[in-house]
Amino acid sequence: MIRIGGGGGLAISGERFIVVYRLAGTEEEARGVAGDICVEQTVEFPEDLIDAGPIRGAVMGRLLSIRELEGEGACEAVISFAAEITGFELTQLLNVVFGNISIKRGIRVERIELSENLAEAFRGPRFGRELRELTSAEGRPLLCAALKPMGLSPVELAALARDFALGGIDIVKDDHGLANQRFCPYEERVRRCAAAIAEANAARGGRCLYFPNVTADLPALHERARLAKDAGAGGLVISPGLTGLDAMRQLAADDVLGLPVLYHPAFQGSFVASRESGLSHAALFGQIARMCGADGSIFPNTGGRFSFSLEECREIADATAAPMGRIRTSFPCPGGGMTLERIPDMVGLYGTEAIFLIGGGLFRLGPDLVDNCRRVVEAVGTPVHAV
Amino acid sequence: MIRIGGGGGLAISGERFIVVYRLAGTEEEARGVAGDICVEQTVEFPEDLIDAGPIRGAVMGRLLSIRELEGEGACEAVISFAAEITGFELTQLLNVVFGNISIKRGIRVERIELSENLAEAFRGPRFGRELRELTSAEGRPLLCAALKPMGLSPVELAALARDFALGGIDIVKDDHGLANQRFCPYEERVRRCAAAIAEANAARGGRCLYFPNVTADLPALHERARLAKDAGAGGLVISPGLTGLDAMRQLAADDVLGLPVLYHPAFQGSFVASRESGLSHAALFGQIARMCGADGSIFPNTGGRFSFSLEECREIADATAAPMGRIRTSFPCPGGGMTLERIPDMVGLYGTEAIFLIGGGLFRLGPDLVDNCRRVVEAVGTPVHAV
Repeated sequence: MIRIGGGGGLAISGERFIVVYRLAGTEEEARGVAGDICVEQTVEFPEDLIDAGPIRGAVMGRLLSIRELEGEGACEAVISFAAEITGFELTQLLNVVFGNISIKRGIRVERIELSENLAEAFRGPRFGRELRELTSAEGRPLLCAALKPMGLSPVELAALARDFALGGIDIVKDDHGLANQRFCPYEERVRRCAAAIAEANAARGGRCLYFPNVTADLPALHERARLAKDAGAGGLVISPGLTGLDAMRQLAADDVLGLPVLYHPAFQGSFVASRESGLSHAALFGQIARMCGADGSIFPNTGGRFSFSLEECREIADATAAPMGRIRTSFPCPGGGMTLERIPDMVGLYGTEAIFLIGGGLFRLGPDLVDNCRRVVEAVGTPVHAV
Repeated sequence: MIRIGGGGGLAISGERFIVVYRLAGTEEEARGVAGDICVEQTVEFPEDLIDAGPIRGAVMGRLLSIRELEGEGACEAVISFAAEITGFELTQLLNVVFGNISIKRGIRVERIELSENLAEAFRGPRFGRELRELTSAEGRPLLCAALKPMGLSPVELAALARDFALGGIDIVKDDHGLANQRFCPYEERVRRCAAAIAEANAARGGRCLYFPNVTADLPALHERARLAKDAGAGGLVISPGLTGLDAMRQLAADDVLGLPVLYHPAFQGSFVASRESGLSHAALFGQIARMCGADGSIFPNTGGRFSFSLEECREIADATAAPMGRIRTSFPCPGGGMTLERIPDMVGLYGTEAIFLIGGGLFRLGPDLVDNCRRVVEAVGTPVHAV
């Protein structure tokens, strides 16, 4: 048996951040799991072999409180970790919060409470809800339409983009599956769509913004973002589940680009698939998205073709606005299956501080796409009781 | 109602790749879900609004076959997609395989069968199982020990590294929680540990390799990899769940570095938490890890403190060796809770073509770390029946 010194010479600041976990089981079981988390996420070493000292006292996590969640067969555990063990990097912060324990069952991250210096380490959203100031939307939710289906040529997509902009849509984004396919190369698509929207804006005095999808392999991601900026894009869309969360953080923090960024949830559904493990909707699409610099966080609205509940959608919307040190708020961007009929419910749920995504629904309203867009813009701008 | 042209001018090659999904439900239900996948993962547009033509015929996914999985309340569906829609990029390939549908319940990716040109798009493992040639391990599993606990100084970690190397361990890796903390800065740690291992190698004529953990925010990840190379590291460890899978692909494909890379599963547990949805263990830790260039894939061995079953571990090991075009095989790297007593079982399960990770167990065997290492090396080199 070999013991490890307790870290006699180790000096760690007292700054600690907090993670609130939901742990399946009785209080006694959850207390055991919480103890495992304190060890597994930090020293990852047999606790009984570590001498008394700062490693045990400051490096290891500390269980602050635990309480049973009535009727859920689960408990809420509040654990603090030394801010310094994150190295003030997103990757290592996420590793401390949910690295190895993501592989254990019955552990779910409910929320993260950053300490002061840790919150300072993240630029967060560049615009957040001030993204509105770049558009013509006043006193109503912003509207975002998507360029698709995949398979259309750049010329065809640009024609759709023009109609969306003429119809008063605030943001036109690439569908997240438009990458750099040979049949629709990124550069040509972005130049044509940006030009079409600029023309439409000039024609009607509009301020429609174009957000190309820059989700790509490294380092192409950065080349595409520069091309987008150069073509006159007003923002970017990225799927951090595909590129890595940190690639999004880096992109959003790029002062040379200086563009707003929307966060798309592709490939991330598994994190929020279970009430028993993974991450909460609020933690992933609210808090972590904001740490990554998301000015808006796209997620499937309740009642659409995906599986988020009303409560989960409300939780995301709340988390986009909850205080996080100096990190700005962001926009909730519910989408999926949106129709004219559902707008009053959406305004009721999200209020005006949101970006509504509308896709296929725009094509069903009538024979003229510009008119269809106008009708939707009018509907989101009408007080709920009057629709 | 507005219809979308069918893509009259669109020319797409006939090359298609295959994804095998497990879909919860009866055959009738699964057939509906499979149809949704064909649309959702490609055009993401109301199917009834797309005219006949190449978009419907070639861009959309194609259900090739479906069969009930006896007694599972689920089916296996085989779907093909045009290789071109991936743009031959990892990010967009993963988006087609499991982007939006990751958010639906009851869909699990069992395996991916790359088409020829798609497999050519990935460099894959640089060494794969030829990593063995860089070590002294012959006819037995390789042994890897981890530098920890977090909180030790670079000098203390270097002392452990020296003992591991003197004891005959093949690979010494940083624990995945060692980043660039103020109390143990990356550069000092890596230089000291690499030097300690080089000294030990010189003293005993050994070939122990040091693998620092380069998991980091961008662009620090690349700086740390260069520092590692410069310090004489023999390989790298990265957690692509934290950095993004594509950041790992880029790192492993870096010819200037030219180093083997081990894949750590931190933050990825949610993908494999459910039999009903997410990714199979084989797809993530076998196939996708190899597309990312993993020379070895670390995962929790069955019976340890994590939750992988015997069957899941076997599935990973099989997937590290299964044919994938010209993409090399990789090493399965089971770890977690390894003791001397468990070695025969591990050799029985994985054979000699594996890297066994041993952590805290090395500290319990006796009072001398070098001796403890020697005993473990001897045990893995002994035919199973003789242990």
